[in-house]
Amino acid sequence: MTYCVGLRLNAGLIFMSDTRTNAGLDNISTFRKLHSWSKPGEAMITVMTAGNLATTQSVISLLDERTKAPSDRSPSILEQPSMFQVARLVGETLREVIAGQADEGQRADTAFNASMIIGGQIGDGQPRMFLIYPEGNFIEAADDTPFFQIGETKYGRPILVRAFDPDMSFADAIKLLMVSFDSTIKANLSVGLPLDFQVYRSDSLEAGDIHRVEKTDTYFETISDGWGDALKLAFDSLPAFEFDAS
Amino acid sequence: MTYCVGLRLNAGLIFMSDTRTNAGLDNISTFRKLHSWSKPGEAMITVMTAGNLATTQSVISLLDERTKAPSDRSPSILEQPSMFQVARLVGETLREVIAGQADEGQRADTAFNASMIIGGQIGDGQPRMFLIYPEGNFIEAADDTPFFQIGETKYGRPILVRAFDPDMSFADAIKLLMVSFDSTIKANLSVGLPLDFQVYRSDSLEAGDIHRVEKTDTYFETISDGWGDALKLAFDSLPAFEFDAS
Repeated sequence: MTYCVGLRLNAGLIFMSDTRTNAGLDNISTFRKLHSWSKPGEAMITVMTAGNLATTQSVISLLDERTKAPSDRSPSILEQPSMFQVARLVGETLREVIAGQADEGQRADTAFNASMIIGGQIGDGQPRMFLIYPEGNFIEAADDTPFFQIGETKYGRPILVRAFDPDMSFADAIKLLMVSFDSTIKANLSVGLPLDFQVYRSDSLEAGDIHRVEKTDTYFETISDGWGDALKLAFDSLPAFEFDAS
Repeated sequence: MTYCVGLRLNAGLIFMSDTRTNAGLDNISTFRKLHSWSKPGEAMITVMTAGNLATTQSVISLLDERTKAPSDRSPSILEQPSMFQVARLVGETLREVIAGQADEGQRADTAFNASMIIGGQIGDGQPRMFLIYPEGNFIEAADDTPFFQIGETKYGRPILVRAFDPDMSFADAIKLLMVSFDSTIKANLSVGLPLDFQVYRSDSLEAGDIHRVEKTDTYFETISDGWGDALKLAFDSLPAFEFDAS
């Protein structure tokens, strides 16, 4: 499993992913699931992946043109005229990779499925964010649902639903994501630290740094410990249930 | 889907279930999933069910001896010498019902599976709680994990993990369950009001009333509205993330 969240704020986009992959409980590894391309001043695109690792790595390699010699690469993902075309390209690439693995040769017990969140901005377009399905089709984040989750989405969803606000600052959004990831990590062994996150400021047209949150990250520890206490206080602040006299 | 939670407190047992069943999004109904038997002074047993409704209703009917004329019934579930034997009886009944439906005749696309939480107390035994799997085997709640969930368990789990305390009062436990159910109901259409809950006080050896929480329940409304605000305050109380100067 995996947990990735993309938020579309008024100030820009934020991406956060965990890094744990597993083929069974006894075979876990750390792999990057957050990938970013940019041409400063022209385009910035970030992709987060969940699902079969062979599928998602293959898609990223194809998008990155790793089939070519390094000097010949000019990733086609950066040549698209709009984020809609980027979503189509990623969706088609994903569908082709899955089809190629599913059609011939030895069958696997598990599916080759994967899903992706992509976001970014190209030229004078708006920052946009899409959720891409294994079938290659996709939906776009809109005002009613300005965030997407993929992977193990359920544990961390209630706090997103309750506390997300598109007007929130990047700092608050990172805090919110850390709470959501902490709830998920506490409940599901297949989601684990370290986390990667990236902030994209609208109209900057350059990729922000990809930050890594390690197990020893003091801010994450503070949030993780503090959230338990804060939840208990919140719980205590609610009125007590009273049994009927009947 | 369904959501049921059973808590084993030091003061006794609490059971809460929703009542929504669905066969597709366009076919939802309300059915009781919390069933209780008691012989005051001798035994009290409660069963909560999740999964295929035909399976769970059949199991309950068999346990209740509804195959017999009303005057001949003496539910065998109340004749067991211990809660362990009750768990075995319920598990075997569940397995037989599933096997009977799965073996012959027309096949269904969906599984006939179901799982159950049972809890209660018999004679001078301790109050005990079990989780019963579709295969008929079961596990018992212990000090390390003194609660069970079945059905749509993930959304409502983080608050249980953080705020549950076996020393808590019944009133606090009901508040906790309402928060957990509210988080689930807000996120998943297949779990819905009204809720049923029952409190069993250790060594009372009589079934507490089964209370129903309707859509218009003012306490549930207070919790549902108040929890959103309390979560936001809890969130605001955590320290802000600070970007590195680097």
